[in-house]
Amino acid sequence: MKANQNYKNIAQSYLFSTIAKKVNEFSQKNPDKKIIKLGIGDVTLPLCRAVVDALKSASDEMGVKETFHGYGPEQGYNFLKEEIQKYYQDNKVNLDIDEIFISDGAKSDIGNILDLFDKDNKVLVPDPVYPVYVDTNTMAGREIEFIDANAQNNFLPMPDNNIKADIIYLCSPNNPTGAVYNKEQLKQWVDFANKNNAIILFDAAYECFITDSNLPRSIFEIEGAKTCAIEFCSFSKMAGFTGTRCGWTVVPKTLEFDDMNLNKMWLRRQTTKFNGVPYIVQKGAQAVFSEEGKKQIKENLNYYKENAKMISEVLTKHNIWHIGGKHSPYIWLKCPNDMNSWDFFDYLLENIQIVGTPGAGFGKNGEKYFRLTSFGSKENTKEAVERLDKFLN
Amino acid sequence: MKANQNYKNIAQSYLFSTIAKKVNEFSQKNPDKKIIKLGIGDVTLPLCRAVVDALKSASDEMGVKETFHGYGPEQGYNFLKEEIQKYYQDNKVNLDIDEIFISDGAKSDIGNILDLFDKDNKVLVPDPVYPVYVDTNTMAGREIEFIDANAQNNFLPMPDNNIKADIIYLCSPNNPTGAVYNKEQLKQWVDFANKNNAIILFDAAYECFITDSNLPRSIFEIEGAKTCAIEFCSFSKMAGFTGTRCGWTVVPKTLEFDDMNLNKMWLRRQTTKFNGVPYIVQKGAQAVFSEEGKKQIKENLNYYKENAKMISEVLTKHNIWHIGGKHSPYIWLKCPNDMNSWDFFDYLLENIQIVGTPGAGFGKNGEKYFRLTSFGSKENTKEAVERLDKFLN
Repeated sequence: MKANQNYKNIAQSYLFSTIAKKVNEFSQKNPDKKIIKLGIGDVTLPLCRAVVDALKSASDEMGVKETFHGYGPEQGYNFLKEEIQKYYQDNKVNLDIDEIFISDGAKSDIGNILDLFDKDNKVLVPDPVYPVYVDTNTMAGREIEFIDANAQNNFLPMPDNNIKADIIYLCSPNNPTGAVYNKEQLKQWVDFANKNNAIILFDAAYECFITDSNLPRSIFEIEGAKTCAIEFCSFSKMAGFTGTRCGWTVVPKTLEFDDMNLNKMWLRRQTTKFNGVPYIVQKGAQAVFSEEGKKQIKENLNYYKENAKMISEVLTKHNIWHIGGKHSPYIWLKCPNDMNSWDFFDYLLENIQIVGTPGAGFGKNGEKYFRLTSFGSKENTKEAVERLDKFLN
Repeated sequence: MKANQNYKNIAQSYLFSTIAKKVNEFSQKNPDKKIIKLGIGDVTLPLCRAVVDALKSASDEMGVKETFHGYGPEQGYNFLKEEIQKYYQDNKVNLDIDEIFISDGAKSDIGNILDLFDKDNKVLVPDPVYPVYVDTNTMAGREIEFIDANAQNNFLPMPDNNIKADIIYLCSPNNPTGAVYNKEQLKQWVDFANKNNAIILFDAAYECFITDSNLPRSIFEIEGAKTCAIEFCSFSKMAGFTGTRCGWTVVPKTLEFDDMNLNKMWLRRQTTKFNGVPYIVQKGAQAVFSEEGKKQIKENLNYYKENAKMISEVLTKHNIWHIGGKHSPYIWLKCPNDMNSWDFFDYLLENIQIVGTPGAGFGKNGEKYFRLTSFGSKENTKEAVERLDKFLN
């Protein structure tokens, strides 16, 4: 048997392990100093009441013969797909129920969707970037090209005629930068893809943080997207499902390349290589859309947004260039005094015991930048902001 | 973008849709006749008490900040991996904790494991067969060869020197035939794989039905398997998790091909393209191994086994050749009077309203055979057996 040799080309990322090591060493030397972690990419608030109640009630159903659920539809139960359909309708996007596929999270589907594409497609990925786009394509042996996201383009790279790409990754609101495309910008990408027979893989995992109704929360708000885009979304950040695992993928029925229909192909892929999301988890996700659920998750999102606002305000006060934080849980800042991002990491840790994520860990354009997140507790975030304020004076 | 052209070569299976259509037509014409379905491949008993309690208590944990669980380890929590490790130890198989990967079911991992292999490997699949082995490799463009399972070899094909294969699928207890390899037979496969630098993908999803301690429940009971085999297992049939989604995959650390370590590759694959099984589901699965859990799932397994025994007994009484049913929920029988399997399907439906699965749907060697399952209710199975007894007289 010959193993997949492409695995030899996957870069090893030491970003988070290096951070953990540095934090560990510091706290062993300074056991009395309180470290505040603003590098967390995971939610910290618990599941809301409505979701917990739904999970428990579905668990009870599973314990009774008459209401027990065995194998479900691989693409998800209609009761959940209909709620997602309505969620898009409220945003003026009409989807057919068969265009929505329930997933166990955006990460799985972003990886698995590549099964539908030939190996010899050229991939375009913005830099800095969520590492999964690059690693999954490297595993499959695809050629990857990067497009620069930087201060000149506000970390929102745009297409131009020099770009040759078959598969284009866009993430908006962006991880790690928090930058958000407006409709005109996304329209340029959609037009580019349609013109060049390319497909856009649109990662909308952070759409729930968008409050400005002029900003697109779905690529399907853009005319023409249904012939060139697949969208990935998730309950992870929206409702704290990072450990509960549920999301969805939208594959339009009109998405065809050389007479091959991607909606039918994805259905075939999922029915063959996936067995659906647990019934109880889908019932929990359904509760996110109930009246109480909607109210409760909004409270949680507002909690994180308040944190983001506090961080953004102190940076503004001290004239530190930054984006994100408004329609995103991430704040992306330029390290002061032209510092390198790992130096700034050490500097913050040593002096005021705040831990963030060095931008260099997300790609070459991340160098001299730094990511803070709003997923900490309000108390800790407040304390961190006070430390920053004093220190930056 | 060029779509994956291999999808054009996937066979469309109309097996279960054709069955559903025939049953529908019959019941519309004969609304007063009670149809008994013995074709079901899904469990029908609810989750046991211990599991439901664990799911509910884990749901409560998720609703409280102090006990909330966000992203977990992609390869599963140690609390569950340790229980599985013990389950193997009780069976005299020693596994390192890092050799066990928690999955959302055997089907996903049986499909996804192919990411680790080069496209140009030759695949060997027994016929008749669970269609997933064939379809997943067809999607990836691999060449597939079949090995005949038939009455001559008791539906347990053995290796010989004419076979050229890099990836070998074995399923024992078998779906659809219920045939079980003994240790000597599996040893021949393990030796063959080691000698020919091949890998065995061992589907052990039905191991819990084995009661004879001389029959191997895991391929790792066989000396040499840790250098040539990956094993897939599931809580689906063991504990009724078909709609709750949990299983595990064992990838030995000693599994190396050309200096590439498959355990490390699988860890890398899973951390990149998977985000783990829901915390609550893993807590539910853990409860399967509690004292009450073990007792309760045994009761359920015995319930299905009793059904299988009834079916097997009536076939024996009427001299109908069959295998399975003893260490498997499936009974595989030779259609009487040399009938074709779809003719026998119609014959049973028309005359005594029993629905089974025509063997021809599982491959060419399934022709003239028929699958019955023990997943119905005891009452229905008993009634079906009475009808069969009368009819076969």
